[in-house]
Amino acid sequence: MSFKAPESLAEQIAQHIGEQIITGKLKSKERIQELKVANDLEVSRGSVREALLILESRHLIDILPRRGAMVANMNKANVSALYETYLTLLIVLATKVARQWQQGQLDPLIEQLQKIRAIANSNDPEAPERVVTAGFDLMRMAYPLAENPYLEGILEDLQPAIHRAYQMALTLDSNALSHSMTFFGQLLEAVLKREEAKVESSIKAYGDHLLSIMMDALED
Amino acid sequence: MSFKAPESLAEQIAQHIGEQIITGKLKSKERIQELKVANDLEVSRGSVREALLILESRHLIDILPRRGAMVANMNKANVSALYETYLTLLIVLATKVARQWQQGQLDPLIEQLQKIRAIANSNDPEAPERVVTAGFDLMRMAYPLAENPYLEGILEDLQPAIHRAYQMALTLDSNALSHSMTFFGQLLEAVLKREEAKVESSIKAYGDHLLSIMMDALED
Repeated sequence: MSFKAPESLAEQIAQHIGEQIITGKLKSKERIQELKVANDLEVSRGSVREALLILESRHLIDILPRRGAMVANMNKANVSALYETYLTLLIVLATKVARQWQQGQLDPLIEQLQKIRAIANSNDPEAPERVVTAGFDLMRMAYPLAENPYLEGILEDLQPAIHRAYQMALTLDSNALSHSMTFFGQLLEAVLKREEAKVESSIKAYGDHLLSIMMDALED
Repeated sequence: MSFKAPESLAEQIAQHIGEQIITGKLKSKERIQELKVANDLEVSRGSVREALLILESRHLIDILPRRGAMVANMNKANVSALYETYLTLLIVLATKVARQWQQGQLDPLIEQLQKIRAIANSNDPEAPERVVTAGFDLMRMAYPLAENPYLEGILEDLQPAIHRAYQMALTLDSNALSHSMTFFGQLLEAVLKREEAKVESSIKAYGDHLLSIMMDALED
């Protein structure tokens, strides 16, 4: 049995607000008022301030001097810059894993992929959201194999903004989930076979596909 | 004349402590006590707490639950993971600039390089430190040309830890500065000629050189 340290209050507040941004309840450029959040959640302004710094580091809000916090703007330029950065780092991660994995280390990732497939094929109305979460968990299982805490930290910081963008792609493309399933399968196969060129090309192709879906719907 | 918004108190505290870490006055794994810093600097604990979060996001300290903050450990594994990440992103930055620059946009960078050369050739005892600072400024002048705020933010977050490592390389290699000058010149020339392969190879070669110097001196 394993115990997990409780999240700090600031982290809990950050996750609460972050979820509203990711799911689109809070929209691009919407203002987030420190005092209002503190009153609504019955927490101190200091904790809200800390939570806002966490959300800024996760690229979900911008904090402007003397003007406060607002939800990060998800426009064409931002989403394409976000993907450019994320895909580059994802390629570094997956390429390292492809090069370094040792006997048995990929087994938990293969199991996780089977789990994701089972969720996708179920009738659970929450299957899409669960597949997305399980997909990010698959990526996280690769972290220890790449042995790079900086890469891991940066990917984690970008993950919420990527989740937010993906959530949007899901509403635009009814095939988004099955496309993701295919991608997971191809990527894991390339990693297993240590085919580094294919690792890179499959991540690029998947990223380009997602981007092209979103670009049509986003503002300049 | 241009005015700059004053840094927040937390940012000032973060820069003060950050400088001590970069210059080696505070050593790897040394503890940083919130209360002691607050008393020494006569500031509130809340401001110190915020400053520590900033320093954590800049990879200069680790904050451990219920054990407080300590200076990030600079060992072989960390420095090599740091460089792997930084160099990857620096290559993305420089490659994009090489591909996208337009008439006149590189002029300020060429001027900056001449300025760096003048500092390096001067008798100023602080020339090494000034060259390092001016070198990072050269990188910053490339940010707007790459049009990627995420990349920019991540490079900025990694910059203090890279500065810390470079400060160590300077003490180990008396030729480090002239080597850097050569690198800056080669890189800028490759960018000017839009030679993307050379952009990548010159960054990799320079990074590998710095790493090899440090690896000999670092602990496992």
